Amino acid sequence: MKPTVEIVLSPLLLPLTNLKGKTVVIIDILRATSTICAALDNGANSITPVISVEEALSYQSGPYLVAGERNGEKAEGFDFGNSPLEYSPEVITGKDVVLTTTNGTKCIHAAKDAEEILIGSFFNLSTVVQHLVSSNQSVVLFCAGWKDQVNLEDTLYAGYIAKALSDSHEWESDPVEIALDLVENAEDDPTEYLTRASHAKRFNRLGNNIDLGVCMQFDAHPVLVKYQNNTLVSA
Amino acid sequence: MKPTVEIVLSPLLLPLTNLKGKTVVIIDILRATSTICAALDNGANSITPVISVEEALSYQSGPYLVAGERNGEKAEGFDFGNSPLEYSPEVITGKDVVLTTTNGTKCIHAAKDAEEILIGSFFNLSTVVQHLVSSNQSVVLFCAGWKDQVNLEDTLYAGYIAKALSDSHEWESDPVEIALDLVENAEDDPTEYLTRASHAKRFNRLGNNIDLGVCMQFDAHPVLVKYQNNTLVSA
Repeated sequence: MKPTVEIVLSPLLLPLTNLKGKTVVIIDILRATSTICAALDNGANSITPVISVEEALSYQSGPYLVAGERNGEKAEGFDFGNSPLEYSPEVITGKDVVLTTTNGTKCIHAAKDAEEILIGSFFNLSTVVQHLVSSNQSVVLFCAGWKDQVNLEDTLYAGYIAKALSDSHEWESDPVEIALDLVENAEDDPTEYLTRASHAKRFNRLGNNIDLGVCMQFDAHPVLVKYQNNTLVSA
Repeated sequence: MKPTVEIVLSPLLLPLTNLKGKTVVIIDILRATSTICAALDNGANSITPVISVEEALSYQSGPYLVAGERNGEKAEGFDFGNSPLEYSPEVITGKDVVLTTTNGTKCIHAAKDAEEILIGSFFNLSTVVQHLVSSNQSVVLFCAGWKDQVNLEDTLYAGYIAKALSDSHEWESDPVEIALDLVENAEDDPTEYLTRASHAKRFNRLGNNIDLGVCMQFDAHPVLVKYQNNTLVSA
């Protein structure tokens, strides 16, 4: 029997899925997991995800850079927001970062029962797939969504992963079938496809017309990111 | 401003959506809402949805027919299961039915804050759409799913409704965009499309290779079904 693929479409649906013994891929394309991959590939030493703004600020007296957003904008008093473009090698090499975001960071904590926790984004799509195929474990693709609502970009990414696992893994799962449908409609131009997403419209209202295209750069940061000892590191 | 369309993809996601002042369409294509439409169009006087098998059985001493299923099979001691084919005019005309199902009936109760509750299935698709367009209220399409998991057939139906409301209503909603993608992929042959659904595979394992095709008969039972005074009636 092949290992399985499941998709958690929203944090509210997580109780339906048993994570024990499985590899969980955390997905928050716009923008937490994209930013994490960019920062670690650009030389950051570690990223510690925390749930609240207050907890993040408590790290400020130490050697950490404090980063993150609420409702899509940089939180007050933070060194960085949540755009991958802020985390260039010049500013991030060798640094330890504490990160909190509206959706993505809490999912990392919610997945603690899993055997292995990875961070997925289009930046490291092929790297994640190669690891999942070779490790041959059952996989849960955990979409962060937006404030617990199912979103288009995370579901689409989960579909790309599932499609790439169709030889090595198996499933009987309607969420997987749904995600594969999105891939079928998006494949010609996934960035254009995602202009329909609520989050793309939210970016436009905030005057950000760059980050959607940035986060859709397939394999731009081919780094395998694991959650180990409460911290995200490049494996 | 136009009225809005929202989709609740699973009962677990219902807390994200405010139902006040809106029309809710309950969707459980395989098979509760299909069965309800067939029974009322075939002459049943009323259908009272109840949550538990025990509650349903408590009606058995009265003038009611007791009907429903658990896990896709007729519950013990019931007069009818949950296949639309069982509810022919010969057996159902003038009858009052008490119904309980794994997924659909509990959603009707969960939607009680809404201004209006309708029952949707492919059997009455055009009838539901005509009512929603002419009443000009904001709409919530509430998918029952399977044991709280998002499913393909209910999401697909919600997409058909949303597509038909694209002139009269508006949305900024990723669940609606996802449902529209399913319609785009299914439109050529929606019954064939739904053979991918977990529920279709469950039917096969139970030896039921009829009900999927039956429940996909568009506009076969053009009845408007409303929930009023704890009972479903043909309006």
